[in-house]
Amino acid sequence: MSSQASNGVKFPVELLNKSCKEVFTAIDVPAADAEMIADTLVLTDMRGVYSHGVIRSAHYIDCIQAGGIKPTAELQILNESPCAIRTSAAGGLGIPAAIKATDLAMERAKQHGVAVVTVNHSDHYGAAGIYAMRCADQGLFGMSMSNTCPLVAPTGGAKATIGNNPFSYAAPGGKYRAILFDICMSVVATGKMIIAAAEGKKIPEDWIIDANGNPTDDPTEIYRGAISLPFAAHKGYGFAVMVELLSAVLAGAGITKDVHSWNKAPGRDANTGHCFIVINPEFFGGLDEFKKRTDLLIDRLVATPPAPGVDRVRYPGEIEFEHEAEALKFGVPLPQSSVDELRRAAKLTGVKLDF
Amino acid sequence: MSSQASNGVKFPVELLNKSCKEVFTAIDVPAADAEMIADTLVLTDMRGVYSHGVIRSAHYIDCIQAGGIKPTAELQILNESPCAIRTSAAGGLGIPAAIKATDLAMERAKQHGVAVVTVNHSDHYGAAGIYAMRCADQGLFGMSMSNTCPLVAPTGGAKATIGNNPFSYAAPGGKYRAILFDICMSVVATGKMIIAAAEGKKIPEDWIIDANGNPTDDPTEIYRGAISLPFAAHKGYGFAVMVELLSAVLAGAGITKDVHSWNKAPGRDANTGHCFIVINPEFFGGLDEFKKRTDLLIDRLVATPPAPGVDRVRYPGEIEFEHEAEALKFGVPLPQSSVDELRRAAKLTGVKLDF
Repeated sequence: MSSQASNGVKFPVELLNKSCKEVFTAIDVPAADAEMIADTLVLTDMRGVYSHGVIRSAHYIDCIQAGGIKPTAELQILNESPCAIRTSAAGGLGIPAAIKATDLAMERAKQHGVAVVTVNHSDHYGAAGIYAMRCADQGLFGMSMSNTCPLVAPTGGAKATIGNNPFSYAAPGGKYRAILFDICMSVVATGKMIIAAAEGKKIPEDWIIDANGNPTDDPTEIYRGAISLPFAAHKGYGFAVMVELLSAVLAGAGITKDVHSWNKAPGRDANTGHCFIVINPEFFGGLDEFKKRTDLLIDRLVATPPAPGVDRVRYPGEIEFEHEAEALKFGVPLPQSSVDELRRAAKLTGVKLDF
Repeated sequence: MSSQASNGVKFPVELLNKSCKEVFTAIDVPAADAEMIADTLVLTDMRGVYSHGVIRSAHYIDCIQAGGIKPTAELQILNESPCAIRTSAAGGLGIPAAIKATDLAMERAKQHGVAVVTVNHSDHYGAAGIYAMRCADQGLFGMSMSNTCPLVAPTGGAKATIGNNPFSYAAPGGKYRAILFDICMSVVATGKMIIAAAEGKKIPEDWIIDANGNPTDDPTEIYRGAISLPFAAHKGYGFAVMVELLSAVLAGAGITKDVHSWNKAPGRDANTGHCFIVINPEFFGGLDEFKKRTDLLIDRLVATPPAPGVDRVRYPGEIEFEHEAEALKFGVPLPQSSVDELRRAAKLTGVKLDF
């Protein structure tokens, strides 16, 4: 999901946070919610996942201005029991709803050992990994998932009828901060086809099908209605269905085509759904033991002899944590497209940026 | 995971159940546990997953006779709270431990909306899908997973240092029985390499690496120490790690190489771990609504226009349910290798089979 920084400029984290927060408060988003959005988008960029960082800010503003997202909506509890809670984002922004739902799930998992919180009538919630890592940073195992509008063909299908449903989990470590895994269900992001097309290269035949459902190795088919395939055929398809079951069927959110694309229908409640599952290691032998055992697992994974041409084996999340530490020290090497979209967001909301 | 039946014989379900149960009671497994094992192995064959059906019976007997599995061990509760429970199979058989753990998780999820039960000091638990479907058949969403001894190379690695960790989920439907998804983490099962090798065919380069970690399209490398790769590179690797975190790190079971192979070390406690997560739709808008919404999801998936050359799009589990219904009517078309192993189990335990 990363893309190259188009210039050498690195943006201080504080400056990006402040800018992003100003943009959202300027369009009536409550200060606390605007801070959650700014923290989330900037942290995502810090981790090198530029596709889900501040580049999204202007899209959220588009939806607010089109009336599809209510900037002041508050998370509502629909069904509540100690560790199973169904909520509604009430047509508001995805990120603050997801953070509040995650915090609720964490609070209940701390008390009861495990908790599930679902969200419906929400919107794009940024990077799934933000919410899972929020759990790991508090000593909890977290899963985070969301459905999307249809973007991927089921195995054997010739039409995108299921979402690219992001899924993430994270687990706390001791000497290692955590394990963090954050994926979508297509083989590759659209960006890879765009790059291959620009370079005149062929792509593997399991990445996309053309608009008629035929196999293709031509990346330019994405400009003619090509459809993304799920990773590992029926395996990616099955995981996409799992996320749909928990984030939409269980949560009471839009199922497949009932989720409205914020690109194509910015003026409508997207009715996206999310699901957060949090497990507390204190109820399973204690957090200290869990962290030590996570460390042992990581030690063993990274000690795997590398294949020829590979420097060393990494654990899930290692690259993101390296990016984050680097960005905290030296600033965020934002791609030009991200800078452009943050500028557009500022223009849309009448905010003057300090850069 | 299916293989071809090597003859036209179909075995009545009752006959297989009775035979399998007799074999296990003959080696001191309590009648109730033997029945669970028989039901599980035969149901797995009925679903067409012959790699995890009665073909496993003789291996379990091998381990009991070698002293690695205690036939009379009972599931012990290590830490208990209403919806988060850590148990130990106490060195006993994997299947009865997994059924009891699933039933405990279901009982608690019925009361509290969600429950997590882990198991350690267990052994091979057969097909992961058995336990997830047990939940779906009772109106619950279930996840089932287990670690294994190291069988797969992490992405970039040249040695198998993580398990082929099975993962399954199932969700109840209304007019459709359920959605059922049951996978392992390698690209393909070893059986596919054996078939390709026998037919003198090449295999795709992302299936295995040779014993030195080099890419190969030669299936005969599996006879020279080739290593399985995870599906979809870092995605399969990350899911394998998730299963290891929940089934081993959280459960207190053997982590990676601390799980003993029942092939190589049948005389040792395998210390395999499992994890079951059960969610009750009654706490999220009600089971009736959930079933209707699962049906709607399936309706939309199967209505996807098929790609050229494909008859129709299927939903996860559809093929297994078709096999099961067929086997119930006409008997189980067991492969010869399954028959042979059941006969070997009978011979090992001094049981005379009725076929």
